[in-house]
Amino acid sequence: MVVGEITEERDLVIIGGGPGGYTAAIRAAQLGLQVTLVEEGDLGGVCLNRGCIPSKIWTHTSKKISEVPQMQEMGIGVSEPELDLDKLLTYKTKITEQLRTGVESLCQGNKIEVLQGKATFTKEDRIGVEYGHQFDTYIFKHAIIATGSTAVLPEGFPKARSRILLSHELFDLNEVPDHLLIYGHDYLVYEMASTYQSFGSKVTLIQDEELDLDQAIEKELKRSFKKKKIKVIQQDSLQSIEETDEGVTIQLTDQKGKVQSIEGTHLFTSGNPIPNLDSLGINRFGVEQAESGQIVVDHTMKSTASNIYAVGDVTEGPSLAVKAIKQGKVAAEAIAGENVEADLTFLPTIIHTCPPVASVGLTEQEAKENELEYLVGQFNLNANGYAKVTGKTDGTIKVISDAKTEIILGIHMIGEGAVELSSTFVQLLEMAAKVEDIRFPLFAHPSTNEGLLEAVEALTGQAIHNPPQKEQTKIKERSF
Amino acid sequence: MVVGEITEERDLVIIGGGPGGYTAAIRAAQLGLQVTLVEEGDLGGVCLNRGCIPSKIWTHTSKKISEVPQMQEMGIGVSEPELDLDKLLTYKTKITEQLRTGVESLCQGNKIEVLQGKATFTKEDRIGVEYGHQFDTYIFKHAIIATGSTAVLPEGFPKARSRILLSHELFDLNEVPDHLLIYGHDYLVYEMASTYQSFGSKVTLIQDEELDLDQAIEKELKRSFKKKKIKVIQQDSLQSIEETDEGVTIQLTDQKGKVQSIEGTHLFTSGNPIPNLDSLGINRFGVEQAESGQIVVDHTMKSTASNIYAVGDVTEGPSLAVKAIKQGKVAAEAIAGENVEADLTFLPTIIHTCPPVASVGLTEQEAKENELEYLVGQFNLNANGYAKVTGKTDGTIKVISDAKTEIILGIHMIGEGAVELSSTFVQLLEMAAKVEDIRFPLFAHPSTNEGLLEAVEALTGQAIHNPPQKEQTKIKERSF
Repeated sequence: MVVGEITEERDLVIIGGGPGGYTAAIRAAQLGLQVTLVEEGDLGGVCLNRGCIPSKIWTHTSKKISEVPQMQEMGIGVSEPELDLDKLLTYKTKITEQLRTGVESLCQGNKIEVLQGKATFTKEDRIGVEYGHQFDTYIFKHAIIATGSTAVLPEGFPKARSRILLSHELFDLNEVPDHLLIYGHDYLVYEMASTYQSFGSKVTLIQDEELDLDQAIEKELKRSFKKKKIKVIQQDSLQSIEETDEGVTIQLTDQKGKVQSIEGTHLFTSGNPIPNLDSLGINRFGVEQAESGQIVVDHTMKSTASNIYAVGDVTEGPSLAVKAIKQGKVAAEAIAGENVEADLTFLPTIIHTCPPVASVGLTEQEAKENELEYLVGQFNLNANGYAKVTGKTDGTIKVISDAKTEIILGIHMIGEGAVELSSTFVQLLEMAAKVEDIRFPLFAHPSTNEGLLEAVEALTGQAIHNPPQKEQTKIKERSF
Repeated sequence: MVVGEITEERDLVIIGGGPGGYTAAIRAAQLGLQVTLVEEGDLGGVCLNRGCIPSKIWTHTSKKISEVPQMQEMGIGVSEPELDLDKLLTYKTKITEQLRTGVESLCQGNKIEVLQGKATFTKEDRIGVEYGHQFDTYIFKHAIIATGSTAVLPEGFPKARSRILLSHELFDLNEVPDHLLIYGHDYLVYEMASTYQSFGSKVTLIQDEELDLDQAIEKELKRSFKKKKIKVIQQDSLQSIEETDEGVTIQLTDQKGKVQSIEGTHLFTSGNPIPNLDSLGINRFGVEQAESGQIVVDHTMKSTASNIYAVGDVTEGPSLAVKAIKQGKVAAEAIAGENVEADLTFLPTIIHTCPPVASVGLTEQEAKENELEYLVGQFNLNANGYAKVTGKTDGTIKVISDAKTEIILGIHMIGEGAVELSSTFVQLLEMAAKVEDIRFPLFAHPSTNEGLLEAVEALTGQAIHNPPQKEQTKIKERSF
């Protein structure tokens, strides 16, 4: 470390230029604050450069490949799809560069001072930034820590590896694995199982924990995996992982107590996110950390040091950009004096499998556990006219409502259009919509959206396109 | 006409088995009524068999064709798309048959008596149904008229024609026109302009009236047409239409007063919907009709004869299945004694062009005309991360809010995902959402949905991904 040369004063210093950090910086600038943003690597962070965006390029490619047979059936004469991975890697570089340049321009346009360097707190109102041979010190009124997380291999994984791919390393791999083993239970592993199957890999998914989706959605997801010949193994305990020149072998005990040995050419896991806090020096003063290392924050993202805020993966909760973005805005607004809070109650679960999943609010299991009196309405997309038109009939929409108040408690969908429809789900739950609030309005015809209305109508056995027998069964079932 | 043989009593007779009629029949059956449904042709009506569903098969095919270059850029090696129209026609037959069979099973499952025949009111509580050589008379407690409409050629069109295609005749044409002229101003003409361009036709669109879309959306739609080399001509007055063995020639005066002669190989127009009421005999008793012929109904769809209801195209308002479906449910529920009403205030405008349009609530023009104090927020999809990923960056989302109450007055979108997002728009408007109701929740990242949030944030110059200069201009502009 070199010696500090100057000490400057700043309204707000933000450490980390990922979605949480750059969003906070722009919102703070919009609210009139002078903002300094310190980023060690690329603006946009892991999400834009290596995580969310590349993974969605992968899942979108998968979706498009999977649509070809339907296109052919409709009379669109195209040849069988062949994936050119080099072209896809080039496309990824192009899109991430464009988005990164976009964020850079926005920072410039908003007059945000961007420093490429490594930041360390020296006191609770002071930060040092090291870039190249220079080290400058800044005194700040407020700071936001948005340094994100780093994925680390789960226990039992060998340290030396070349065929074992951790997190976003998968999006740099320049070959399509013959047999990809996928290990874990987060959303990315489901997305990659679905994606690599369509890329031509044989795929085996080893789940180390159960999913937390509504059981109807999980069942349909597993059914779609089975249809695609993706093998799913529920692990009880991991015995060993061994990498050779030709591949990877996993030894495990499955949930039935059987010891299994699974061989593949490559192994992918998302890893566990560890907050990037080690070199930041926050332990020098009163910033409380949870047992797992994350910074403890209140509903405005303020840490136990009143001028220091934290957003995104360095705080507790899921490691998702949607959370970081929201928290970044709230932190900036709170620092600017606004009366705000971040509430993650209706955080949507989004999985870009084919078909995709969107899930918000209470699952049926949770409704049961909480001993609520609830109703269930479900509608399968194979009875939806628009799904018939597009050939995307795999999927279902399930709605949980409170039996007494008729307030909607949860909406869960697997099927084409789920991601776009997720905003309807979130808005309905946030606004405490009742059954009548959905039955009253008009739904575009024909559209997948009508499936939501029918799922709501099914709460009382009145979905137009559900067979009446099924409805009657449902009515019996639905009382707790 | 043959002589009536039997007279039977019925709770509810519905005439017409289109989306309005069959939906009413199923809902009435769900509510415990004994229902008789009379349909002259196929269950599902024009919408399912010849209109909405075929047109959406056409637009979906167009969408898939237009996605091929992007697929190729991403590394999905497929050949240039070639449309096999015979295959598409076969696909249409397959899908409409499946859907029709579905409706038939639902009617059976709900124990609805379906009569294939022609119905005529003989008295206000009596109807005759003629099928083959038989004519039966039914006494009913209630009836719902849901006989739909028939498209007729606009004035000035020649009666003898083979290259002039009216309404759903287009979906039986077994060739792709070299140069398709399209005439009209309803949504279908825009869909078909976009569709046939992607099918390989040269397309000229002649607008006989202005669109009623928000100007920002119309501008973007016209821009996309220009990009696709679809020529748009604004007509002032039609002079003549002539069909020859080789094609069709239209003479008109355009809005600049210039006389133009436009030649094409085929001409398509949606025609004007005329309610199918002539042979029904409703003029024999007190069912009031509007000047234009439609049955006058109250908010429960009750006509001026207290036991006769009417839904869909035989009532005033737009000729859309979404309206018929809603009205069908309301009529059935009202007859079953429920306290209901049909409210079309937030009827979504949906146009399946590439990119599609979804528009709900007040346009900026309407806000101006009503002398409201309003704000405008707009966000272009080329600054949306997910749109970048998928290559669907053409489009914009525009939100109008009340400057004082902050209630959202209108949401207008052109861009991929618009149809699915339309339910969010409708729900927000129906629930009288305020700006804060949209800014508070969490939007999936990355997703097109985030564009809606940014359009709402842009109301106060706070869209994260809008350049700040642009925002400042917007702030000045947005006060009325």
